[in-house]
Amino acid sequence: VKRPRRIAAGTGREATEIWFGAGLLDGAASRLISPSGRFLLVTSRGPRAAAERIRAALGGHLLVDLEIDDREQAKTLDTAAVIADAALSAGVRRDDALVAVGGGVVSDVAGFSAAIVLRGIPWNVVPTTTGAMADAAIGGKTGVDTRQGKNLIGAFHPPRVVLADPAALEGLPEREFRAGLVEAVKAAWIGDASLARASEKTLDAVLAREQEPLLALLGGAAAVKAAIVSSDPREGDLRRLLNFGHTLGHAFEAAGGFQSLKHGEAVAWGIAAAVDLSRRRAALSRRDGERILRMLDRLGPFPEPEREPAVLEPYLLRDKKASVRGVAGILLDGIGRPKIDESIPPADWLDAAARISFAG
Amino acid sequence: VKRPRRIAAGTGREATEIWFGAGLLDGAASRLISPSGRFLLVTSRGPRAAAERIRAALGGHLLVDLEIDDREQAKTLDTAAVIADAALSAGVRRDDALVAVGGGVVSDVAGFSAAIVLRGIPWNVVPTTTGAMADAAIGGKTGVDTRQGKNLIGAFHPPRVVLADPAALEGLPEREFRAGLVEAVKAAWIGDASLARASEKTLDAVLAREQEPLLALLGGAAAVKAAIVSSDPREGDLRRLLNFGHTLGHAFEAAGGFQSLKHGEAVAWGIAAAVDLSRRRAALSRRDGERILRMLDRLGPFPEPEREPAVLEPYLLRDKKASVRGVAGILLDGIGRPKIDESIPPADWLDAAARISFAG
Repeated sequence: VKRPRRIAAGTGREATEIWFGAGLLDGAASRLISPSGRFLLVTSRGPRAAAERIRAALGGHLLVDLEIDDREQAKTLDTAAVIADAALSAGVRRDDALVAVGGGVVSDVAGFSAAIVLRGIPWNVVPTTTGAMADAAIGGKTGVDTRQGKNLIGAFHPPRVVLADPAALEGLPEREFRAGLVEAVKAAWIGDASLARASEKTLDAVLAREQEPLLALLGGAAAVKAAIVSSDPREGDLRRLLNFGHTLGHAFEAAGGFQSLKHGEAVAWGIAAAVDLSRRRAALSRRDGERILRMLDRLGPFPEPEREPAVLEPYLLRDKKASVRGVAGILLDGIGRPKIDESIPPADWLDAAARISFAG
Repeated sequence: VKRPRRIAAGTGREATEIWFGAGLLDGAASRLISPSGRFLLVTSRGPRAAAERIRAALGGHLLVDLEIDDREQAKTLDTAAVIADAALSAGVRRDDALVAVGGGVVSDVAGFSAAIVLRGIPWNVVPTTTGAMADAAIGGKTGVDTRQGKNLIGAFHPPRVVLADPAALEGLPEREFRAGLVEAVKAAWIGDASLARASEKTLDAVLAREQEPLLALLGGAAAVKAAIVSSDPREGDLRRLLNFGHTLGHAFEAAGGFQSLKHGEAVAWGIAAAVDLSRRRAALSRRDGERILRMLDRLGPFPEPEREPAVLEPYLLRDKKASVRGVAGILLDGIGRPKIDESIPPADWLDAAARISFAG
């Protein structure tokens, strides 16, 4: 058995130890951290098999064992309050730790509960989706949605430990598996050209869920994100690079009422638009642009996004990256060479949205 | 006009600038901090006069102007959500700042909202009670109560600025004025023997609400607390010293259903018990013990607490400072010389509770 890969993110009180490897679920007791030795387990219905193995690994040391709804609609302050109430009713102390076993919704809301219970208790994540392994579980952003939008209430509260075992992906629906991989290749495109190249070669094996290439891609993506959030723990320019594909991505997602497109699928379309703009406003070569589109094409098919400019425009202008100068976006001068363009005219975004396809 | 006193607490992202002085309310625009220049005002009915002066000082730059219920029963996650909703509906951005104008309940809940909206926006406090000036507004603890107890949900989120102007105490009921002063003299007893001595001399003038001696006592107390929280921003041993009088104080408060005794009043009884125990288990002299009791007597009269051991005991044992070794408490070896006693037998606490009086 190969030894797990260890990735460090953050420093001091905000340090996260990230592990990628096979067999981590059953050995969880030796890696998950609780100062008291007691844990509060929060999970959802989907990843029951993974949760069961964590439960078995932690034996009788569960103070709370709670299953929550993991649909985006349930990512609310009310759900965070339910978790907090369960923890407080069980007599949680400041040295007990939470363990979130699930995808991005579970880790976002459970992590936020950990941030506010007793003004913050330690927590751990066992991600059970490709998106959570590559992206959501890393960087300390926790939070819930409100009627005004996504992630508008939250806290920076990095987990102590992230335990990513491919066995936890068992039972993950194919569509979600593929959508999550978009965030993984996104990380390669902004931060690791050799990972991008390698993943082009291994993608068929990754899609067949072969352990080694899957771990290499997801772990590589996590390493890119960990390096960025370590240099920029809050919201500086470096961290903004992670938003590659997210300007139009968020607009596509919102225009579809968060129903028709999964987050990773919307980001895939958003990346295609950013590639189009990078050809016009940055130094991205035709060849590198085509490499990106080809990868997205292999990760799809993705449902069609809303492209009608009149429908899309209000969602684009609502973006927090919008200003009088235009709507900021992340473009590429090449694979692994991202830059921020602060002033892309809305019309250029909307034109790109109308034009994009993965056929190149 | 005397120049205001400036006290610094915390460092870096957690630094607070604390101002004590007359005239600060009307000059608020030059001292309250908002990176964008826009403010969200949160206040309550009691301190309407102070809020009106802040409103006038900030002119048209209020994005939100909200009055909340400031009773302890309203210090809930629901109230925090109401504030967050108002902020988000008004289009709050990460560079806007909140201003809480009120007592401890308003600053606790509004500060918590500031901590979680957009994962944290800057905030300011204009305390309008003696307790908030001496204690509640300083140190970064924000939070709300739950059905399991007080302050069980919250965040560390220090305000950027605290603006303490005695004019903000106008209209504060006498009972609340006196109860809040208990926290001020408590700070002197644990951290500033000369402030303790001075306040014995000036107490009549303080109780007559004379500006200079009142500012000296409250500002001195704030300086003690600021020094402690700067050395110990989270919850280490140094910060625990602030709990002088709070072990039995919390039990008295809870046993009275949070109705019969105000927090400061319960702490006054708790301090009397700690003085009794300090005579037996620490080096506090009879003379210094009597000085403390005499001050509390002058600050009173306070309603009688529940003293029945069978009623009090469960509240005492529920304390987070309880362990198998006993219930920890802060005792004094002398005025200005506190120490932690980790293992005071519950029976000793209950005996002290039965014995205490301010007559000495």
